[in-house]
Amino acid sequence: MASGVELTVPVYRIKGRGTGPSVYIQANIHGAEVQGNAVIYQLLELLQKQTLLGDITLVPYANPVGCNHKNGEYTLGRFDPITGVNWNRMYHFNDELAKQFVEQYPDTDVDTIRSEFRRWMLDDIDEQLDHNIFGLTTGRRIAYQLQRMALQADLVLDLHTGPISSKHLYCPEYAKNSASYFNIPHTILIPNDFAGALDEATFCPWWDLTQAYQAIGRKLDFNKESFTVELGSQELIDLDEALVDAKSILGYLQAKGAIAANGFAPDAMVRYGCMLKDYKVFYSPMGGMVDYLAEFGEPLPAGQPLARILRMDNYSEADSDPLHYLTLDQTVIPILHFASASVNQGTELYKLFSNYFEL
Amino acid sequence: MASGVELTVPVYRIKGRGTGPSVYIQANIHGAEVQGNAVIYQLLELLQKQTLLGDITLVPYANPVGCNHKNGEYTLGRFDPITGVNWNRMYHFNDELAKQFVEQYPDTDVDTIRSEFRRWMLDDIDEQLDHNIFGLTTGRRIAYQLQRMALQADLVLDLHTGPISSKHLYCPEYAKNSASYFNIPHTILIPNDFAGALDEATFCPWWDLTQAYQAIGRKLDFNKESFTVELGSQELIDLDEALVDAKSILGYLQAKGAIAANGFAPDAMVRYGCMLKDYKVFYSPMGGMVDYLAEFGEPLPAGQPLARILRMDNYSEADSDPLHYLTLDQTVIPILHFASASVNQGTELYKLFSNYFEL
Amino acid sequence: MASGVELTVPVYRIKGRGTGPSVYIQANIHGAEVQGNAVIYQLLELLQKQTLLGDITLVPYANPVGCNHKNGEYTLGRFDPITGVNWNRMYHFNDELAKQFVEQYPDTDVDTIRSEFRRWMLDDIDEQLDHNIFGLTTGRRIAYQLQRMALQADLVLDLHTGPISSKHLYCPEYAKNSASYFNIPHTILIPNDFAGALDEATFCPWWDLTQAYQAIGRKLDFNKESFTVELGSQELIDLDEALVDAKSILGYLQAKGAIAANGFAPDAMVRYGCMLKDYKVFYSPMGGMVDYLAEFGEPLPAGQPLARILRMDNYSEADSDPLHYLTLDQTVIPILHFASASVNQGTELYKLFSNYFEL
Amino acid sequence: MASGVELTVPVYRIKGRGTGPSVYIQANIHGAEVQGNAVIYQLLELLQKQTLLGDITLVPYANPVGCNHKNGEYTLGRFDPITGVNWNRMYHFNDELAKQFVEQYPDTDVDTIRSEFRRWMLDDIDEQLDHNIFGLTTGRRIAYQLQRMALQADLVLDLHTGPISSKHLYCPEYAKNSASYFNIPHTILIPNDFAGALDEATFCPWWDLTQAYQAIGRKLDFNKESFTVELGSQELIDLDEALVDAKSILGYLQAKGAIAANGFAPDAMVRYGCMLKDYKVFYSPMGGMVDYLAEFGEPLPAGQPLARILRMDNYSEADSDPLHYLTLDQTVIPILHFASASVNQGTELYKLFSNYFEL
Repeated sequence: MASGVELTVPVYRIKGRGTGPSVYIQANIHGAEVQGNAVIYQLLELLQKQTLLGDITLVPYANPVGCNHKNGEYTLGRFDPITGVNWNRMYHFNDELAKQFVEQYPDTDVDTIRSEFRRWMLDDIDEQLDHNIFGLTTGRRIAYQLQRMALQADLVLDLHTGPISSKHLYCPEYAKNSASYFNIPHTILIPNDFAGALDEATFCPWWDLTQAYQAIGRKLDFNKESFTVELGSQELIDLDEALVDAKSILGYLQAKGAIAANGFAPDAMVRYGCMLKDYKVFYSPMGGMVDYLAEFGEPLPAGQPLARILRMDNYSEADSDPLHYLTLDQTVIPILHFASASVNQGTELYKLFSNYFEL
Repeated sequence: MASGVELTVPVYRIKGRGTGPSVYIQANIHGAEVQGNAVIYQLLELLQKQTLLGDITLVPYANPVGCNHKNGEYTLGRFDPITGVNWNRMYHFNDELAKQFVEQYPDTDVDTIRSEFRRWMLDDIDEQLDHNIFGLTTGRRIAYQLQRMALQADLVLDLHTGPISSKHLYCPEYAKNSASYFNIPHTILIPNDFAGALDEATFCPWWDLTQAYQAIGRKLDFNKESFTVELGSQELIDLDEALVDAKSILGYLQAKGAIAANGFAPDAMVRYGCMLKDYKVFYSPMGGMVDYLAEFGEPLPAGQPLARILRMDNYSEADSDPLHYLTLDQTVIPILHFASASVNQGTELYKLFSNYFEL
Repeated sequence: MASGVELTVPVYRIKGRGTGPSVYIQANIHGAEVQGNAVIYQLLELLQKQTLLGDITLVPYANPVGCNHKNGEYTLGRFDPITGVNWNRMYHFNDELAKQFVEQYPDTDVDTIRSEFRRWMLDDIDEQLDHNIFGLTTGRRIAYQLQRMALQADLVLDLHTGPISSKHLYCPEYAKNSASYFNIPHTILIPNDFAGALDEATFCPWWDLTQAYQAIGRKLDFNKESFTVELGSQELIDLDEALVDAKSILGYLQAKGAIAANGFAPDAMVRYGCMLKDYKVFYSPMGGMVDYLAEFGEPLPAGQPLARILRMDNYSEADSDPLHYLTLDQTVIPILHFASASVNQGTELYKLFSNYFEL
Repeated sequence: MASGVELTVPVYRIKGRGTGPSVYIQANIHGAEVQGNAVIYQLLELLQKQTLLGDITLVPYANPVGCNHKNGEYTLGRFDPITGVNWNRMYHFNDELAKQFVEQYPDTDVDTIRSEFRRWMLDDIDEQLDHNIFGLTTGRRIAYQLQRMALQADLVLDLHTGPISSKHLYCPEYAKNSASYFNIPHTILIPNDFAGALDEATFCPWWDLTQAYQAIGRKLDFNKESFTVELGSQELIDLDEALVDAKSILGYLQAKGAIAANGFAPDAMVRYGCMLKDYKVFYSPMGGMVDYLAEFGEPLPAGQPLARILRMDNYSEADSDPLHYLTLDQTVIPILHFASASVNQGTELYKLFSNYFEL
């Protein structure tokens, strides 16, 4: 930073027996989304009593620039305050890599592919980090350093929160079955398109590789999974709720064989999914002050109000009403809403599942 | 504003029968404290069915600069973003006025004093607004225009909220009995010292005047009251809760004879008070991420934790603990806490009653 | 906005004789880049004495949300403060449109193509503006409304500024010859790739159309040009300099036949160009406080310092120096630098021409 | 900070021979006012070749919270972003201390008074720092720690800058003669009223003490001086100009006997002064975009324009003009102006000397 202060990040590494998949978990890449740090705290506490089969790396405060950047009372969380670029859209992806790799190693055994392709990816990141004469943005430097660690794991969890939000999960389409290992009722299935986030940056290369081998007739499964886990609302720390979520994550890790079986099991619940393209943002049709009405997580029938907007400037105007009810003509499941009651025309009011289905 | 946009404020005036005290109610002088607008909406709805004995003026969106100033997702509420000055510390007060007035009108009858002293105050404000060759700050111009309206009323309510907060009331010491007309369990009693806020700006001159007449042996009561009503948390609109608060305000107005009796009565409840000097801010002893534990409104025994602070950088350090519990060695009543979990050393964590008593 | 204030934009339309190309000029889509408003003022003054051959539309304050959004003393200019999205990356582009059009109108005459393709584009925008059940972001609504006006013109100028900057021009590769009509010594040539900006949003469709007709053997020239004109530094109004730039723009309009010849002629000067891919950002290799040294607009030989960074925390450290000189090992032309001396590691320090050439 | 990062400040202490007054110089208490750091750099370089008669302490980056707090491209400088309180209004002052001291030590010799009163002040600060069960704000903790160091010196210089500004000096009325030792043409004379700033916090107690002894018939001079030195504009580092200012400061230190004579002499120049009450802020009478016209530092005759405000929304309105010229009906000397061209009604446009005189 300007005064010469160096920002660092604590990294906790726990060795496993080497018989299970390795795990990487980070939290707080978005400054205001702090609850993941509490979940990492509870994981560290719980893991002391577990048998680890794979190595586990945990990184709280993953973005110390973002998590220390107060903007008034709140934390300016989602993007670099100088450039506006989302901190979770700056990871690296090379869409040529899988093809080039398969050309060079068409017949290699799966273990060598696994380790060698990982080396290729790490070299590619190092190239970006170290050999750029014009330098690198603040956000890319942070992202690439985290990505270096994440790429060394088989299972990657990036802990986020929404603004005011229920729990939900971003899951690669191919890993859909794993979504049910978490105690999270709502899952967004994302395609193999890199849009800059850590989950994509870590699973897309392997998905690409699988497809490139398939194109030459080999059917391989590298068993790599990455999830963005949305833990609830931003600007909140709740250590009790964090314990619940830590256990949910251990349930997933047990199911994948990263920790020895110890009775962690997902709750029975109705789980809803929707495709990323059907995960819709509802923008405010007018400026005003919003009384958010819809309950999170439950199907909201067509015509039922999502919210009502108060417009006191319209009170006593003959042809206008001070309360405007917002509805949709289809059933949706509201997942999260904007963090403040005060909105402009065009502010992101809600994110919601449309065309949802049971998982 | 810079592009030439003119910001205006809706003002609702309802005529009464002229037999009761007049009333001025404003909301949202702090940008993020929006719930007062919803209370004014519900008041306007309820007042249609009441008999008004005094005139009532209601001003939502009292500070359109503040309430439209988004700072990221949130509303930058408490102060002028350019100067840092609190929007509710820019009202005008002339501490010579009462003395000068009594010198000029030692023997006048009370009704003339009432109207003439008001005229003096309005002239004094106009002098500030219009005859300043070097101009006026944005905030003073807003404040003085509101104050002109407020000074014309007998009863003044300034609707605010805390960050994350329970309901509470700021009340002049001399009007302590009126605090019980509201459905609000916690009252801060403020002395006759002008510190810039609207309640002070409207009651201090009359209190001064009372004392100045007392000094020459006349005991007068002008029956002026001003309250800052803290409705709960900022950044929220809840029209149902606003209806509850609007009825509480009507209870006060009925008790003071501003509306005809119509069955509004305060609930029975334990009401706590504390003097302004005992309304303490508790500052964070360290930076970190806060899990707020104490319940609002209830006495918290000495030694019980207010909050615990998570410091993941301390995890695995031999001589340090990742969880720091914050306690006090006296019983207090927590009233509100900071809006975010992320704090620096020295951030205002809690405001709390110390040395409290039952009202 | 939240209080119900409606933000509007002044639009000045001047009819021409209908014999020359029509013109659209806007300013201040980025909030802090205000000088374009002064240029529009001077253009309106100068145009009163010119003979207009085509219609001219001028739009100052194009983004009233951005230009009224103060963030402390400065104007938060480049992006939506809620989402972080650059205000000049939200225009609409449909990359299927040209192909579809040529399929439907392979043989139509050029004037019909011109008017009909414009109608297609406007319908496409209207579709976005009016038929989206989930609504539209604040920025897209603003952008699409401006784009509707811009698409009706033949020549489009979008007036911007850099942070601390010399004058420069973004110009489509095919319109390279027109760059010399402006009194601007530095030109960045941009390819036919839509990246969200107004210039691209208005020229790329026509370039696409030209290529789509070429693919079926017709060689058409629609004579559409769009430029982003960078007028100097942000946060400044200089009406005298604006007059200089207004005359430079009239020079271009005269050269294109939009106004009758009246002696406006570009100055003789060395004009440098570089391709967009060679217009490099130089990121700060460390946090610190920057003394910017390089002169704008002149080739800086390899090894000469761009800047020196002060790091007082390094003073008196044996192995470190408090002054760090930043150099490159190639000759570049510095065009602009960051607005503040205080930078983090990774802050955009300079933008500069590499591999430049004389135009 | 929230992630546990500890912010520290480099402190440079150079021992002198002990025959001259000791010196304390700090820079950058306001985040954007960075040039003082460069001056401290140049002082450290120059002091290596000087003979120090008194000890010198130099503190760059005095406020690491403020100087690392970016708000968009710029540094949020003047106040705590959470509370709005000016970082330079949080020093401590106990207006009872001098009286109490003189009561206890009416007849003590001057050297003992000097050392003992200093001890009282330090104890008073320590009491604030360490014995407050409710804690301390971020800003007060920073301020008190700096004040502890400053109180140990005889001469205190607090290095600041204006927004866009010429060089000027705040000087206690009694130290008026010392103003001419600096190469700074404009001086504001401040009375013995504590308003929170470091200069006042360090000279007011001694001034009080002098007056308290005078009241009992002793005429003492403690030879303590404090200045706020305004170096020019914020957001700028200029090491060459810093060398000029460092030499000017050495001129003052030589004149006061803190360094051995070495030929540093103030330039001959007309020096203007004005009383603090006559140092006026000129607030913008309207929102708009400002072309600042008045030259800094030179008397501006009555009726000459300070600035003109562009209001494009008024262009083509019959009864309005797009350019509004701002004038005063008295001669003033403009010292600084606002940092941005975009202003609201009521924004601080200029600070200027009225009723000025030659020093």
